[in-house]
Amino acid sequence: MKLLSFVLNGQASWGAVSDQGIVDLGARSNGKYADLRSFIAAGRPRELLAGIDGAELGFDEVELAPVIPNPDKIVMAAINYREDSTLPENIPEYPVLFLRLPSSQIAHDAPLIQPRSSEKLDFEGELAVIIGTGGRHIPAEGAMAHVAGYSIYNDGSVRDWQKHSHQFTPGKNFSGTGAFGPWMVEAADLPIPHKCVSLVTRVNGVEKQRTDTSRMIFDIPYLISYISTFAPLEPGDVIVTGTCAGFGSKRMPPEFLKPGDVVEVEIEGIGVLSNTVEAEK
Amino acid sequence: MKLLSFVLNGQASWGAVSDQGIVDLGARSNGKYADLRSFIAAGRPRELLAGIDGAELGFDEVELAPVIPNPDKIVMAAINYREDSTLPENIPEYPVLFLRLPSSQIAHDAPLIQPRSSEKLDFEGELAVIIGTGGRHIPAEGAMAHVAGYSIYNDGSVRDWQKHSHQFTPGKNFSGTGAFGPWMVEAADLPIPHKCVSLVTRVNGVEKQRTDTSRMIFDIPYLISYISTFAPLEPGDVIVTGTCAGFGSKRMPPEFLKPGDVVEVEIEGIGVLSNTVEAEK
Repeated sequence: MKLLSFVLNGQASWGAVSDQGIVDLGARSNGKYADLRSFIAAGRPRELLAGIDGAELGFDEVELAPVIPNPDKIVMAAINYREDSTLPENIPEYPVLFLRLPSSQIAHDAPLIQPRSSEKLDFEGELAVIIGTGGRHIPAEGAMAHVAGYSIYNDGSVRDWQKHSHQFTPGKNFSGTGAFGPWMVEAADLPIPHKCVSLVTRVNGVEKQRTDTSRMIFDIPYLISYISTFAPLEPGDVIVTGTCAGFGSKRMPPEFLKPGDVVEVEIEGIGVLSNTVEAEK
Repeated sequence: MKLLSFVLNGQASWGAVSDQGIVDLGARSNGKYADLRSFIAAGRPRELLAGIDGAELGFDEVELAPVIPNPDKIVMAAINYREDSTLPENIPEYPVLFLRLPSSQIAHDAPLIQPRSSEKLDFEGELAVIIGTGGRHIPAEGAMAHVAGYSIYNDGSVRDWQKHSHQFTPGKNFSGTGAFGPWMVEAADLPIPHKCVSLVTRVNGVEKQRTDTSRMIFDIPYLISYISTFAPLEPGDVIVTGTCAGFGSKRMPPEFLKPGDVVEVEIEGIGVLSNTVEAEK
């Protein structure tokens, strides 16, 4: 099942993707589950998902929202894929983690904002993991049972501000830079990590990044276990699992995004997250 | 006026400090302002504060909460004070910022948790700035008008986890390590930054850190302006302005906190934030 968040006539809701469009599960639950996060926290009860074959809404009738617009936390891993050229001594001992503010997120199809204060907006295509069952001190062995599903993230990065100091915070938290969508695919429907799932990023149709999830340095169970050692994971929390080579700032010569550019991140079995760059007004 | 958050009979509320104790302004507002953050967002309307001279509650009747238990964001500055020995070339060009999760916060008098996974829990006494009026792209010149008040923070830091990678996130986000209290003093009552306000940290009564707010490298207006360039500030947001020399891990020999240790951070004109270390259960 694919689940998503959207805004209809100014009202936030969430739903499921059917063959023809969207079923408004926020409305169908009569407000019992006001958002996708609360449905996840309730264990995604199947009765609400029964008999979803028609569509109540077309995709053109709603404005999509970030898959989880209001997570308690978004924990981001920095570069986390082995390249063919990766030397064993370049594998770090621990994952490199930073936090992204939920308010920096945007939906599929929403403008990716190039800030006034920088011309160094870059893309990073990544697999997002959405936590179902929370917990602290989750062992890696049982960690996959805590995953509700998967989605796609473009960790839009403002490289000069990212390098103002050794802490990435400013460059990773500009408003309008964290693209998250278009939907989540429930874990049962996407057998990660046992299967290699391909991840491709394109800018204006040209492929820039390609990898598959078998190349992660710190895999999903490890990330869940490591993060939950310091912070309790909550239902709806988002772990963004890091990017691979090919993003713009490390290309020769470097390439940065400019207004009008279209960034697509495609993950096999999930879909395509697409955003067009706009200059901050 | 001093404002605080607390829990009474399992119910979260907030209030003001009077001569004899606490006035429950959550109850007095009949739920109009469910928490201190929403009162701040409403512009701290003075009518609710009129005639607060008696006390409805004693401090022993409530359990204090972090001053703002649920901020949209907590932006932390790393070390941010000039020492007598600071060389001009050691002044960074930009502030070093990281994020702390609201769920890592604890109240005044609550146990400061030494995690199971580390014996390197350290203290950092800091001045916390609470945002009143939000905004994006706030110029430094007008920034102080955006401040609702000030409080005290102990940025409890798990040093080995902080150094697992170049990003501080894990070591700065352990549950039960961000002490924030006991209350906020409204900005009008504490003329920062024009006056030097002293900041002292003690462990078991022994002074470990001492500075004053005139020694900040990046002052409050600068921090507000810089942060609001990448993220909109919201009412109730917390900017924790960094610590000075004297914390445990840089002492010779290094000193780390152990269960039973009492950490006090005192800021002139605000009060004393006190927490006793407990081992994680």
